[in-house]
Parts: sequence; C-alpha cells; structure tokens
Amino acid sequence: MKHGKSGDSKSDAKKPADFTIGAGPTTVWPEVSAAMSRPMMYHYDPAFVDLFARTTEKAARVLQTQEDVILFQGEAIGALEAAGRACVRPGMTVLNLNSGVFGRGMGEWLRQWGATVHEVAAPYNEAISSEAVERALREHPEVELVAVVHSETPSGTVNPVDEIGPLARAHGAVTLVDCVSSLGGMPFAADEWQLDICVAGAQKCLSGPPGVSPMCVSARAWDLIARNPGAPRWSYLSLLDWRDAYLREGRFPFTPSVSDVYGLEACLDVVLDAGLEASIARHTSAAQACRAGASAMGLSLWPRSEAIMSTCTTAISLPDGLDDVQVREHVRSRYGVQLSSGQGAGRLVRIGHMGVTARPLYPVLGLAALGRALLDLGARLDLGLGMEAALEHISSHEAP
Amino acid sequence: MKHGKSGDSKSDAKKPADFTIGAGPTTVWPEVSAAMSRPMMYHYDPAFVDLFARTTEKAARVLQTQEDVILFQGEAIGALEAAGRACVRPGMTVLNLNSGVFGRGMGEWLRQWGATVHEVAAPYNEAISSEAVERALREHPEVELVAVVHSETPSGTVNPVDEIGPLARAHGAVTLVDCVSSLGGMPFAADEWQLDICVAGAQKCLSGPPGVSPMCVSARAWDLIARNPGAPRWSYLSLLDWRDAYLREGRFPFTPSVSDVYGLEACLDVVLDAGLEASIARHTSAAQACRAGASAMGLSLWPRSEAIMSTCTTAISLPDGLDDVQVREHVRSRYGVQLSSGQGAGRLVRIGHMGVTARPLYPVLGLAALGRALLDLGARLDLGLGMEAALEHISSHEAP
Amino acid sequence: MKHGKSGDSKSDAKKPADFTIGAGPTTVWPEVSAAMSRPMMYHYDPAFVDLFARTTEKAARVLQTQEDVILFQGEAIGALEAAGRACVRPGMTVLNLNSGVFGRGMGEWLRQWGATVHEVAAPYNEAISSEAVERALREHPEVELVAVVHSETPSGTVNPVDEIGPLARAHGAVTLVDCVSSLGGMPFAADEWQLDICVAGAQKCLSGPPGVSPMCVSARAWDLIARNPGAPRWSYLSLLDWRDAYLREGRFPFTPSVSDVYGLEACLDVVLDAGLEASIARHTSAAQACRAGASAMGLSLWPRSEAIMSTCTTAISLPDGLDDVQVREHVRSRYGVQLSSGQGAGRLVRIGHMGVTARPLYPVLGLAALGRALLDLGARLDLGLGMEAALEHISSHEAP
Amino acid sequence: MKHGKSGDSKSDAKKPADFTIGAGPTTVWPEVSAAMSRPMMYHYDPAFVDLFARTTEKAARVLQTQEDVILFQGEAIGALEAAGRACVRPGMTVLNLNSGVFGRGMGEWLRQWGATVHEVAAPYNEAISSEAVERALREHPEVELVAVVHSETPSGTVNPVDEIGPLARAHGAVTLVDCVSSLGGMPFAADEWQLDICVAGAQKCLSGPPGVSPMCVSARAWDLIARNPGAPRWSYLSLLDWRDAYLREGRFPFTPSVSDVYGLEACLDVVLDAGLEASIARHTSAAQACRAGASAMGLSLWPRSEAIMSTCTTAISLPDGLDDVQVREHVRSRYGVQLSSGQGAGRLVRIGHMGVTARPLYPVLGLAALGRALLDLGARLDLGLGMEAALEHISSHEAP
Repeated sequence: MKHGKSGDSKSDAKKPADFTIGAGPTTVWPEVSAAMSRPMMYHYDPAFVDLFARTTEKAARVLQTQEDVILFQGEAIGALEAAGRACVRPGMTVLNLNSGVFGRGMGEWLRQWGATVHEVAAPYNEAISSEAVERALREHPEVELVAVVHSETPSGTVNPVDEIGPLARAHGAVTLVDCVSSLGGMPFAADEWQLDICVAGAQKCLSGPPGVSPMCVSARAWDLIARNPGAPRWSYLSLLDWRDAYLREGRFPFTPSVSDVYGLEACLDVVLDAGLEASIARHTSAAQACRAGASAMGLSLWPRSEAIMSTCTTAISLPDGLDDVQVREHVRSRYGVQLSSGQGAGRLVRIGHMGVTARPLYPVLGLAALGRALLDLGARLDLGLGMEAALEHISSHEAP
Repeated sequence: MKHGKSGDSKSDAKKPADFTIGAGPTTVWPEVSAAMSRPMMYHYDPAFVDLFARTTEKAARVLQTQEDVILFQGEAIGALEAAGRACVRPGMTVLNLNSGVFGRGMGEWLRQWGATVHEVAAPYNEAISSEAVERALREHPEVELVAVVHSETPSGTVNPVDEIGPLARAHGAVTLVDCVSSLGGMPFAADEWQLDICVAGAQKCLSGPPGVSPMCVSARAWDLIARNPGAPRWSYLSLLDWRDAYLREGRFPFTPSVSDVYGLEACLDVVLDAGLEASIARHTSAAQACRAGASAMGLSLWPRSEAIMSTCTTAISLPDGLDDVQVREHVRSRYGVQLSSGQGAGRLVRIGHMGVTARPLYPVLGLAALGRALLDLGARLDLGLGMEAALEHISSHEAP
Repeated sequence: MKHGKSGDSKSDAKKPADFTIGAGPTTVWPEVSAAMSRPMMYHYDPAFVDLFARTTEKAARVLQTQEDVILFQGEAIGALEAAGRACVRPGMTVLNLNSGVFGRGMGEWLRQWGATVHEVAAPYNEAISSEAVERALREHPEVELVAVVHSETPSGTVNPVDEIGPLARAHGAVTLVDCVSSLGGMPFAADEWQLDICVAGAQKCLSGPPGVSPMCVSARAWDLIARNPGAPRWSYLSLLDWRDAYLREGRFPFTPSVSDVYGLEACLDVVLDAGLEASIARHTSAAQACRAGASAMGLSLWPRSEAIMSTCTTAISLPDGLDDVQVREHVRSRYGVQLSSGQGAGRLVRIGHMGVTARPLYPVLGLAALGRALLDLGARLDLGLGMEAALEHISSHEAP
Repeated sequence: MKHGKSGDSKSDAKKPADFTIGAGPTTVWPEVSAAMSRPMMYHYDPAFVDLFARTTEKAARVLQTQEDVILFQGEAIGALEAAGRACVRPGMTVLNLNSGVFGRGMGEWLRQWGATVHEVAAPYNEAISSEAVERALREHPEVELVAVVHSETPSGTVNPVDEIGPLARAHGAVTLVDCVSSLGGMPFAADEWQLDICVAGAQKCLSGPPGVSPMCVSARAWDLIARNPGAPRWSYLSLLDWRDAYLREGRFPFTPSVSDVYGLEACLDVVLDAGLEASIARHTSAAQACRAGASAMGLSLWPRSEAIMSTCTTAISLPDGLDDVQVREHVRSRYGVQLSSGQGAGRLVRIGHMGVTARPLYPVLGLAALGRALLDLGARLDLGLGMEAALEHISSHEAP
C-alpha cells in the first residue's frame, strides 16, 4: 500500500476534534446519529421502500419542487457528474458560470465531455452578475445548458441563481445548479426560480451524512437528456436508470445506501419540523455574527462585498505570512476545533455555519479558536473586540 | 413525482421486518450500528484521515492482499463499473465467465464499453468449470481481461476463482473478480489466488453498510489500466483519481461517506477480531444446516450440486405454481421475516447466511418461516422433518 | 476484590447471545436503543424537564390511571420496596397474596417492616383465587393493605387482580400491586380495577431499560402513607419526596437517570403508537404459539392450568434428570439463545414473550433451541411436532 | 397528575441545549452514547456477567483501590444513603465535615438515622481545615465515622481528603467520602489516602450516565457495618446484599441497570485509555482558564481562595441584583448553553469542567454565554478582556 500511516492499535487512534465547525461534512443532529444506527434493512423490505419514497418526498419539499426528485447514492460531486453526463453531448453549447473552485471544475468537466463551453467568469472573491449572464446568452443563442454554482463553498460567495434561472428559462436553456452547500441554509426554490437540475448535499446545511445527495430534475431537463444518446445508461451515474427503474416502477437500479437514507430522512425532518424559514434565519444570523466578529477582530473577509457573502460559510483571508495548513493545524491541535481550508480558492480559512453549527455560539467558538491561533502564530488582531462584536450581534438579534 | 406511495405521517410508516435473513443488505453487527452513530467528522480531520488509512489496511487483511486497496465510495455495483471502465478500452478482448445474473450483467457492460467479448457460460444453477476457462483462453490468446463472479448471489452458486486466477495469470490476462458476497463468508485470498482486481461488498458477509465497497487493484491491473486512454479521470468512478490522490498523496478526490467508513471499519474489526477462518466456518455451518433442513422438508435446492453451493446464501426452488413475490410477501407479513428473491436468476427464493445471520438459529428461522408460508400457500412439505434436520446439523457440529 | 473472573482484554470479552428471549431484561426496540444514545442532558435543562413530564403522562396512559404517576429511578424491585416502606407501619395488618417467588418475597418484606401479615397462599404453579381473598378479608377486617403480584414472572402465572382490586376497595384496604412484568403484555387497568399502588417495569413487556420503573399511587394510597410516620423521607426510596418535590413543585429530589428516562419514553411511544390492545394481542398470540409448540413437543407446562398462564413468559417444566443451569447453558452456548431460569420457583425454564419478543417467530426460536438442547441432553421429545404446532398456531391466527 | 406542563406532541418538545456545560449530568463521550445503544442483555447472559465484573475492576482502577468495589444501581445520592445507612447505628458518634450543601445534607441524614453528630463546619465558600478535623477528633475520641465531601459541587470547593483520611484512620474511625464529582477530575486515591467508603458518580468528571454509581468499601468499613444490626438487608439500598450476593457469589441481588453499566464501562475506558493523570490535567487546565477568564471579565469567584477551588466546576458569584434563575434561563434561551445553579449554596452560577467539557474551548463557551448574558441583564463587565484571558491561558499551557 502506498499510503497508510495509521497506528496499528485502537489506542493509537487520534481523537476527533472537540468541535467540527467546517464547511462539511459538518456536525450532525443527534436525530441523524440515532437514525444512522437503526437496524439495517433489506432494500426491498416494504418498510424501506416506504421510507425511501417518504424521504424522496421530503427532499422535494425542501428543494421546493414538484418535479422529479432522485436521491443520488453517493456524494454530491457524483450527483453533479451524473447530471452533467446526462445532459452534455459532444458539440453541444454550454454556458458555464465560473466564480470559484466548483465553477471552474464544472467547466473542465464540460470540456472533457465534449461541450463547446462559453464562460462568464468572476474572480473567486466576487460573484457572477446576472447582467453578464444575460449578455452571454444573447451573444450565444445556441446555448442549451447553463451551469451555475449557487453557493461557492470554498470561497464563501453566492451567485444570484434566482435571477439566472428565469434568464436561462427565457432563453430556452436548461439550468444545472450546484446547490450543494446552500440548501437549507439560504433561500432556495427550484421551481419558483425556474431551475431545472439542482444538486444538493446532505452533509452541509442539512447536517446529514455525505453518502446520499438529493437532486431534482425537471421535465425540461429530461427532454434535454433524451436528446443525448450518450446519456449514461446502466451505470452508477445514470439518472435515466433511476428514472426508469425507480421513478416509473419503484425498483432500485442497485442497492441504495440504506443507512445514509436513514440519515437523510432524519435531517430533512429536522428542517421541515422547525420550518425552512427558521432554518435559513439561523444560518443568516450565525453568518452575520461571524462576520461581525471577524471584522471587529481586524480580520478581512474574503468575499469582496457583504452582498455576495454566503450564510453557510464565512471565508476569512489569512494575515500575510501565514498559510492555511499551519493555521488550521494549530487551531485543531491546540484548541480542538476543526475548521476548513479554502480548497484552493485562495489564502483563506473557513468557519462553517451549517445545520447544527448555525446556532448562536458556534461562530464564537470558531472565532475564538481562529483568533487566538493567529495571535499564537504572530498575527496582530484584537481578539477581545472580535469576541465582543460577535456576541453583541447575537445579543441584539432575536434568537431563531 | 411519478413514484411515491408513502404514507404521510410517521405513524403510518411500516415497521421493519423482525428478522432480515436475506442476501444483503443484511442485519448488521451491533458494533456497526454503534459506529454509524458516531459524531460526523470533517474528512480532513486528522482522526478521520487516520481512520480511513486504518480501515484501508484492515480491508487489505481481509482481502488477503499486499496490493493497493481502495475503499470505493458507493455500492459494490459502482465499484465493479469503476473497475471495468478503468480496464476496458474499445476493441480489447475480454473473456467473460457467465453463470448467473451478475456474470450476464458484466457481459452486457463489457460490450457496452466496446470490448470484444468471449464468454464461457453455464446455466444459472451450475458453475463455470476451470477446464472451460482454460480452453477458452487457449482459443483466444488475445484475451487481456478475464471477468468472473466468485459468488453468484442471486443463484447461490460459486465459481472456482482459486483455479481461474492462476490460469488467467499464466495467460497474461488480468482478472476482474466480483467477490461482493463471498468476502468474509468463504475462503478468498486475492494474492495467493493470483487475482488482480477484486471488488467486495460491505453489506453481505461482513454485515456492514452498503454505502462503501472495499476493492483491491494489483500492479498488473494498474499496468492494464495505464494502457487505457479512456480510463475514467476526474470522475466519481475513477480508480486513477483514487490512486493519484489518495494512495499517492493521502488526499481524497472528493468527500468520502464518513459514516459508511465508520461502519466498514467496525465490521472489519468484528471479522478480524474473531479471525477470518472462524467467520468462514460460521458461514459454512449455517449454510449446511439450511440445506439439510430444506432438503429434509422436501424442498429442492436450486444449484445443481452441493459442490457449487454458496455458503452465503441458500437458493431454494419454489414448488410449482408459486411465485416468489407472493411467497416472500407472505413470509414477511405473516412471519416477520424478510427473505430475498432470485433477482431474475430463476423461480427461487433465498435465505441468506451473511455475517450476523451466519449464526446457528438464523437458518432455522428462515426455514420455519418459508416452510410454513409454503404450506399456507398450498405446497406439500414436511415442516417438522425440515426443522429437525436443520437443528440436528447444528447439534452435531461444533459451534464456531 | 472477591468476585471478578473477567478477562482483561476487550477481545476476551464474551459475545452477547444471538437472541435474548428470556424474562427480562429483554431485547429492546430499536427506538429504545436510539433513544438511549441521545446526548445527555442536564436534568434541569427545560427540554429534559419537558421530556420527564411527557414521559410521566405517557406512563399514566399505559397504566390507565388518572392518579399520580412516579417514575421510580431504579429497578422495579426498588419501586416495590419504596411502595411497601411508604405504606407499612409496625403493627399494621396486611394481607399478602403469595403464589410465587415475588409474592413470598413481599411477605418477607412485610414482616421485616413490622407488619402483622396474613397470607393467602397457593402453590407456585397455581394462582390465588379471589374467593380466598374475599374470605381472608372477611376473617381479618383490620387489614389495611393487600399486596398482590399480577404476573408471577418466575412461574409464568397470573393472579386475578381485576377481581381482587374491587374486593380490597370494598373492604377499605389499599392494594399494592406488582405489575412489573404484566404491563403492556396483558390487560391492566389501574383505575378501572380499583388498584391503588401499581409498580411496573420497563424491561419486561415494554421492552425498555431496567433502570427506571413507572408506578402509580392513588389518593387513597397517599392517605394510608400519610398515616405512616415512618414513611421514608429524604431517601432514595421515598415516594413522599417525589410527591412533594416533583409532583407538587416540579423539582427533582435528586438527579434522575436521564438516559433511562429517554429509553422509557421511547418504549412507551412504541406501545402507545401501535395501541395498547395490539400490544396485548401480540403477547397473547406469542404465548399461545409457544404453549402449543411446547405441548406438542411433549413438554409439560409448569402452571397447572391454561387459565392462569401468563402471556409474558411461558414456564416449561424440565424433564426428569435435567437441571435448569445445565439446560440453559447448553441452549446459550450451542444455539445462541438466552432463556431464563425459574428464579427458584421450581425446576423449570422460561421462554419470554415480552415486547420485541412477543412477535410471531420468537417463540419458535425459543422452542427450537430448547427442544434441541433437551434432546442433546438425553430427553425424549418430538421436536418436529413441536415446531409444527407452534407454526400452525401462528399460521392460523391473524397477525397482530 | 399534579405536575405535568408538557406539550402533547413531539413537535412541541423543546430542544436540548446546544451545549451542556453544567455540573452534571454533563455531556457524555461519544463512546458512552454508542455503548448505551447496544443491544440489551439478560443480566445473567454470560457476556453481561463478564462485562459487569470487568467494569467493576475498571472502577477499582480509577478509584485506586484494592478493596471491594460495588456498582450501586442508581444515582450517587442513593449510594451515599446506602453507605450511611450501612454504617450508622443509633447512638453512634459521627464527625461530619460540613462546608457545603452536601456536607449539610449528610449531617441531616446522620441525625435522622440516630447518630450523635459532631460537626466541623466552614462557610460554603471555604473548605474544611485538617487541623480542625484533628482537633475535633481529639475532642471526641468516641467518633467512629468521619463523613466528608471531597468536592462540594454546588460551591466549587475542595476539602483536603488526602489529609483527613490518615487522621481518621489514625483515630480508628472509618471515613465515608463523597467523591461524586471529583473522581476523574482531580487527584483521588482511595487506598493511599486511607479512605474507607468512597462514593463516586458517573455523570460528572467521568462523563457517563447518572444511573449507576461506583463505590468502594474497605475491610475496615465492612467491620463497622458488621457492628450495625440495622444495616439494610434485602433492600435496594443494602451494601450487604451486594457483598453477599455479588462479591461473594457472583449473583445479582436484583436486576442491574444494564444500559447504565454499558455506559459506565465506556466512560471508564475513556479515562483509563488516556490515563488518569491526563484526565486530571485536562480538568485542571480547563478550570484555570475559566477562572482566568471570569476574573479578567470582572466577575468574582465564589470560593474564598484559589487553593480550595475545584477543578470540576467553577462557581461564580452573581453581580448584585441578579438572580441565578433569571441568568441561567437567559443564557439557555439566548445562547443555547445550559449552566448550573448553586443548588442552594449561594447566589452563584456554575460552569462545569467535567469529562468532555474539560477540554480547552468549553470554558470559553461558558464564559462567553454567561458574560454576554450578564451584560444583557445590566451587569457591568469587560467581556473582551475575559475572553482574552481565558484564551491566553489555554494558549500558554501545553494542551493535554
């Protein structure tokens, strides 16, 4: 084996962080943990068949769609690939909106799959403007697909998908939307926003497990897919298999990840029981407290303006001379807090506000650990002011 | 939504079966349930990085390999697809061994991917003979890949992979082995048997979760893959991504299914703590008791001879006039036992002996429920004799 | 340490039985397991305060009482002691109904506490007749307390508490009822049957944890307790503390067993969601199947007549020459099934039908293991006939 | 029912606090949660018998004793009562050391049980001096029992039990030590300190469940108990029953709280695997950080001097005009943190450092919530300075 530096006994095993306040997989709800431990079921046990259907319906309610919903059996990146491969045929023209790591990645995929790709790009600390999209669509009337990332998790920015959806629909193009980290943490309405394929993740603002990813596919999207002879069939990545087997006949194309589906239902229940609006309000509030604290401390937020900042993760620029690996390792080993890197988006570190961690004191925890670690590493900042500002924000806003 | 007949309240939800004695996903160990409920970790939390490496090593020990091991993030069918797509380039010659549903499926995949496919076939109640393989290899010296299913789960039969491995190796061909349902339940030794790519499942004889699948890839297999320019890259199904990112650099190509990896480690621990031989002995014993009981009851075993019968699942032919849906639904609703169908292999029903259920009284439970259900549906059989024979077998063999 | 034959490493640890089909603590519902693993709460966390009150109400619904309900923090034997100590003052006259191990034990307690005890006794394979109770009350007009065991778990018999309650009430006596193993498994209605103090267990027919025991105390019982100056105060065993602190002021007299209360709520939910009648019907059906199987096999049931047999546990007389330790150890080690002894009630072994195990195939499992073990040990019986009879009963009765 | 203000549907249920940082029951280890969810076992299942013996041995290692260890089945207050009732006979002379709520309570119990009680008392923000104990013993040569609380949880103070033990032993008296909240969080060595009966709690610094309490009983203590004809027998509170049944014969006097014992073993494993010294160091460090922060913020610590401050809980005096109910409710509802009251020890609020919460950032969390809440309620303090001081302490001390 090339890689495997593990200790060989249980007692050698490193302990998990005290607090996981990163950009996902994030801390899960106790309800999710409990669900994951339920007895395994045969996938055609009527109780599992029922649970799977029920969970699909609940995902539809959170996605706010009447269109088809598929529970992709794997991490969201697989669901995005499945969606792209279903839609894209060689030579087809696609407009890719690239304002971050995941936008760039989608562009590379699109080219790999043979599409003619036009891009509207923005620096990774900015967002796509809908005007630029409108212009690009006007310039490229042959565009059949518009690919866009709602929340660019690595850089903590948000693109105006609510405006882009109607533009694409008016143009006759299908939208392929990455809402992996936004669902449950910011407003998102698949049908109202005229979006066609939307891929969400369970392990972000839903505080569920990463092994299953809910997605919706509109009738318009199925039409586009139907025009692609190369759309995967009889494949782990085939949306058509799921449509034909599951949506039409109630059969599973293969054995689903039973426990992950348990966990998905549990986290959807948490959101639906409390209400989607309450869930979003919690995320907004946590993000605002975090920003207030970081700024007061003297840290710079990575996104260029507050208007485009995500509520699911706060990206903070690192002071000069510090790199994110060093910072995060120190935060983890000294303060027991697991934060996230920028995944290549820039020299930044991220505090997540996702599901469980979008609660009042998590941002304070994240800032305390980060701020003190930066001081330890030689940065200058006013830790006390930062703590006060974050807490002041929480104090002055009604708890959700 | 096209499909979704679920009740809309929790109290409407159907209850799981009292006993799941099917062909997987099967009842899991309490250790697995407990592991699945552990706090979610960020995938780059050092504790998770360590756990992932440790689990990879444990999988290698169970697969009995020194070659590379990959934990495919999804159900085993995805791992098989990933393996096939990595190896197969259009025009390449492959020998496919087809003695059941999964062998047939692999053949269809191979043709879909553009291979020139030769087949050694056997009826679904028989096994492949190694002589036929030897002959086929002699006839087709250009064969580069031999695809074989170790345990054909749907029909409860076993192919002599221990003999086929050396034949293929001597021929210079790479083997692609589906050991999804055999690992942990019957002897299997990847390196000793000269096998190259072996894909296992966690939800069968390991009694783990279906969402992650351990597989090994030999240096020979990597060489073959290197000759395939179309081997998936930057894909959920890419083995090369896992090799380059994880095996070489310790990076994850995407977020792994954290909870499923917890569950996988737990089930590997159960097997390794008790010893692989003890695990296999349990399966052998359970299968023998089941066969003894079924035969004494007057039921026919589906496989043509005892020599090729699997220890992980006993396939029982249904009496004339009964169909498997009706039988299994009756067994489930009246006796609370979830059995498996033959998944298209024939008119049969299956009692699993997998991990937890490869313990003395599970086969008795399965036979009691099946036998009584068949009586209810008008079949003639001697239930008492069957029960006695199964119990007599358990009584007269040392408990593992 | 005087006693401690444990192995010193985890790997030495013996594994739990495959199936626990004894007389409690019995197999718990998955819902209970999940609940027990919920995050611990501070006992004055408003969420726990709410949960405790809610659980108390649910216990009242299952006990069918409008009177006060206390969740005793400990095993039911402690609750019985607490009840007895509260009521009994030296010199007070008590009628104790003794038809088994627990009836005898209560008598010893009563004497230890200084009561003048009259007894109506019956052999341990018979039940108390209400006529005898009526007679005894007539003979002893000074009786202030009648102590009775509803279900004598060790011997699998039932006393007619529904008839005894009204007799005692008419007499002006308070009843102290041990319904530890009956609640949830047979009809029981505290108020309708005019019972005063009823002590239940969670780990029997409710399939919950043994660490908390719901009990009800009528206004009449409080009056009797008020007349006892020695009723425990400021004690772990004080009902008065619970009344004054919790029932009157919502304060806990001491820290409750938080996790056990989680588990209790979960098992009460299972019963209430399915309905108390359905729960009882399941127990009845399981017990009947078990009796049918045992009799057909040639075994003798311990209780003298079917009319007094409990539905929560079937007591089976052991064939001559066999002792229960030897039999149960063989059943456990060879067949993986944990049965119960008679706890001193006689030469018998017990198969439980409690909560989870009051489902169709559990009695079959128990009989298969017991029957085969008895054969192994030299007994003569017809195992096949027994299996057939039990399954025939299940087949011919509508599944609950 | 007199008390029961619960909502009647699940959705009405209040959510647990985000963080439980009180004085116990405290946040438990994930290992404890997982253990509590394990399948229930019959108490005479050999696997449970083994587990119980193993857990008893582990408790002995943590208590640092070679004497008898009993796992009392109930909360620690019950174990203290059991210990006291075993020792105390009417007319016997006891020296009670009273420096807090639990010391006072023991005195009331001792008098209730008929002892002649002498007391060494200290204000609730001070500790007992060993000189005063020595003097009292000299004055009262007839003292047979010395009762002392190691850690007075409600007021966050510690008594010098290490000095008192040898004084009592030299005097010929037996010690009855309440180490409920100290075990695992501060140095404690039963045998080395010459202590006789020591009662611990699982739900404090061990981060386990409250339903089982390990205690040790020396040979000297058994001798004293033997001289007490009123020592409880055949009672839930009887130590003698446990000695005669369990320690001598391996029988349980009644059904133990199976799940709580699972949880106890799990938390003892956490402490023993990491090492007792490391566990204590974590508590010390957390307490110091908390004190540093509270003081810097301008709050007053309740105990009169640092030397007597407990490491398991920091008691903080409330600013004038504020009461603890109001403060804690605000902290809980606005900041999601559950703190503890002083349980009558004074006008104070407590931040716990117990097991899980004796990790770097928990005290910071507690101070952030408390400090901001006090500001909200009109107090004057410097929140930023407090945060900085606590974090500064963590930064400058090696992480345990």
